Amino acid sequence: MWCGPAVQRGAVGAGTGVMCRKGSMPIPQGPFTGRTVTDLARELRDRKTTSVDLVEQALGAVAVLDPALNAFVTVDAGGALEAARRADEELSGGADRGPLHGLPVAVKDMIMVAGVPATMGSRHFAGYVPDADAACVTALREAGAVVVGKTTTHEFAYGPTGDRSATGPSRNPWDPERMSGGSSGGSGAAVAAGMVPLALGTDTGGSVRIPAAVCGIAGFKPAYDAIPADGVFPLSTTLDHVGVLAGTPDDCLIAYRHLAGDGGGPGREGTEPVRVAWLDPGAVFDGDPRVTRTVRAASGASAEVRLSEEVAAELRETYLAIQSCETAAVHAERLERAPELFDAEVLERLRAAAELPGWRYVRALEARRRLAGTVGALFERHDVLALPAVPIVAPPVGAREMEVDGRSVAVRPALLALTSPWNVLGFPALTVPAGTVDGLPVGLQFVCRRGDEPLLFEAAARADAARTARTAD
Amino acid sequence: MWCGPAVQRGAVGAGTGVMCRKGSMPIPQGPFTGRTVTDLARELRDRKTTSVDLVEQALGAVAVLDPALNAFVTVDAGGALEAARRADEELSGGADRGPLHGLPVAVKDMIMVAGVPATMGSRHFAGYVPDADAACVTALREAGAVVVGKTTTHEFAYGPTGDRSATGPSRNPWDPERMSGGSSGGSGAAVAAGMVPLALGTDTGGSVRIPAAVCGIAGFKPAYDAIPADGVFPLSTTLDHVGVLAGTPDDCLIAYRHLAGDGGGPGREGTEPVRVAWLDPGAVFDGDPRVTRTVRAASGASAEVRLSEEVAAELRETYLAIQSCETAAVHAERLERAPELFDAEVLERLRAAAELPGWRYVRALEARRRLAGTVGALFERHDVLALPAVPIVAPPVGAREMEVDGRSVAVRPALLALTSPWNVLGFPALTVPAGTVDGLPVGLQFVCRRGDEPLLFEAAARADAARTARTAD
Repeated sequence: MWCGPAVQRGAVGAGTGVMCRKGSMPIPQGPFTGRTVTDLARELRDRKTTSVDLVEQALGAVAVLDPALNAFVTVDAGGALEAARRADEELSGGADRGPLHGLPVAVKDMIMVAGVPATMGSRHFAGYVPDADAACVTALREAGAVVVGKTTTHEFAYGPTGDRSATGPSRNPWDPERMSGGSSGGSGAAVAAGMVPLALGTDTGGSVRIPAAVCGIAGFKPAYDAIPADGVFPLSTTLDHVGVLAGTPDDCLIAYRHLAGDGGGPGREGTEPVRVAWLDPGAVFDGDPRVTRTVRAASGASAEVRLSEEVAAELRETYLAIQSCETAAVHAERLERAPELFDAEVLERLRAAAELPGWRYVRALEARRRLAGTVGALFERHDVLALPAVPIVAPPVGAREMEVDGRSVAVRPALLALTSPWNVLGFPALTVPAGTVDGLPVGLQFVCRRGDEPLLFEAAARADAARTARTAD
Repeated sequence: MWCGPAVQRGAVGAGTGVMCRKGSMPIPQGPFTGRTVTDLARELRDRKTTSVDLVEQALGAVAVLDPALNAFVTVDAGGALEAARRADEELSGGADRGPLHGLPVAVKDMIMVAGVPATMGSRHFAGYVPDADAACVTALREAGAVVVGKTTTHEFAYGPTGDRSATGPSRNPWDPERMSGGSSGGSGAAVAAGMVPLALGTDTGGSVRIPAAVCGIAGFKPAYDAIPADGVFPLSTTLDHVGVLAGTPDDCLIAYRHLAGDGGGPGREGTEPVRVAWLDPGAVFDGDPRVTRTVRAASGASAEVRLSEEVAAELRETYLAIQSCETAAVHAERLERAPELFDAEVLERLRAAAELPGWRYVRALEARRRLAGTVGALFERHDVLALPAVPIVAPPVGAREMEVDGRSVAVRPALLALTSPWNVLGFPALTVPAGTVDGLPVGLQFVCRRGDEPLLFEAAARADAARTARTAD
């Protein structure tokens, strides 16, 4: 067992564990634990550090921590150091690209980085090297960020468990015997362990928010298509979102503003306090009541709303039908020609997905339009909905059933239950750390309508301030 | 056998057949043969007729002609005469709603007319009476038109042959042993026989243009969604178009301007002659070379373009995948609960459609976007494409194979081959009479991009003027 980053205050080389979970093994934290993008940007401009120094810290942390976590598939030390030197030259020359300038970042292995292998977590893409950056990588580079490497993904991002990949499962820094979630499990582990301050992920049913929640960091899935997906390998084209993982919601917001096609939209106007309603997760999924209680206490919600069980079921079925048909469309030729190259579980799921009749997909597209109205109506009286990101704590690596509150729960549906509705509807959703259950982190998820993103981050900041105040009591 | 309307100059009660096809039986023509909307509007305003008189002419023609043609499912004599009296009062009172004011029209039985049964050609809807007008019926009524009845449709509009309906096949006025096409076969027969001057149809793969072509009249399928489809029973929601059938393209245009949500768009500006290119139908379907020659001679085309066989095949497969999945989605519960109420052939086709895997539908939606670019590029150098509407003449009622140029041809794919691509792409398409082959009419189809509708009608007018000049030589 391994003591999680949120309760560790050491750094690589320091190695002092504090307040570790009972029975856990204290391990060193990475160099970026507890340092925000704003902190790092200030250090750089105060000449207390350089981009080369930050990248070397990241590379060193990867060397020390990654053997146990398997967060990285590929590390591009040469490319990163060269980019860091250019960033340092630009900053010294007075050419300042903003808060990400010179910062090391990691990129999920579903997202193309020119000249760096992209495996999609699959043997199908062994040896594949794209020759162009994805649009989101271009945006990060234009903001001055330095790509240090590619992070582990569930094979083809087709799984929220993060433990079926050609290069092995990524593992949770809070307990490497547990999942770091998926499919962006490597990005979650890399940020949570402090190896990098920021990482890109993709989120089709929760693949940014699930790793962020179970690894105790922040993760933001913007509105559908707010960050262009060009150069990102598809999982399910109308559900796929590019998102960001970082230590704090503010860091997610800073990155998002550089990544969004429209610069992240307008800031909030007016001074009315944000109206947060608790969305009772019970109708959607019967999860761990301790997770629900912990998250609700952190939410800052002043009202409560529910989805009917019919709407919850329709959201679930709509997600499954859309994802199955779109994913099978991506992989039909691979399924036909080289099924043996898929992971066995992924193959079984793809084959079932390829059988789903088309009329169910048509119905799902109709249901999505209808549900957008039904669920959207909740926002007439509330700005932001709050609910757990994941209704259970991180399951053990490889587990597909797990005991929760004395019941056996199927892991995959549990992980996806509270995140996937917001992919179906394309609504912005943010998860932030909300405490621990059994010494493992749980995530508080905020959801808003497109255009209300500033309210989402305001709700997160208020919840964090309240939690900090309570902790200080 | 029965002599077709385009070579008949008699009227009901006159009964003189002229230039009849060899071996055919001369029959009387309906009262609206050879009378355009503009003619009728003038007669009304010159007090030479009244709306009540026109409606009585229509009802009389239906009584005499329809037993042999089966164009009508329901005739609403009472409602029509009442509406005609109101139209006459309005016109006498100086309230002029424009050229359609007081004219009798027929409406396909897939389109709701308040208080009048709508069967969709199916036993599933025996006894069903909608309580509201479809949007297109509301628009016609606002233009002053008088609905005289509902016309025969292939069951649920699911077939271009028009010969599988709960109330029997509609028949071709040129030869009642032949199809009047489908699925708007009743509207085609009603206009072609001169029972009404104008009818509404729906067109999902050619269901307005196929009956118009094989019945020797004009039929216009506008751009996708240009006429709102509210209150129209769906066949395939992203392919369904409301369209109009009339004696001349000008009459279609007059009706379209009243039906289109935006009033039919702007008129054409500039005086450059319309550039018409012949689209070689050979790559798309190997039809009757006499049809191709006859239509091409009438086209007025000054250039020639081709689709590759790959593009043609992709258009065909895209149409079939989209239509199958969307149609199965409309009928899934009926298929499950009361399959015995469907016509046997329709049932067999629906069951096959319900099996098509969803990933093929996803691929078809992607292909549609790609094809819109590929085919749309043809319009960079040409305003309008010309090709046959249907590559064969009207097949016998019930035929599914037919000899064409010494080969056996499958009837359903032949009927749909040249019309369905424009449903996939949503482009406006108009068919106009282009002469006869074996004494049966053939249709010349013009296609343009959305927004270029005035050019489509200009091309039709020029082709007609050229044909008239040739005939006069």
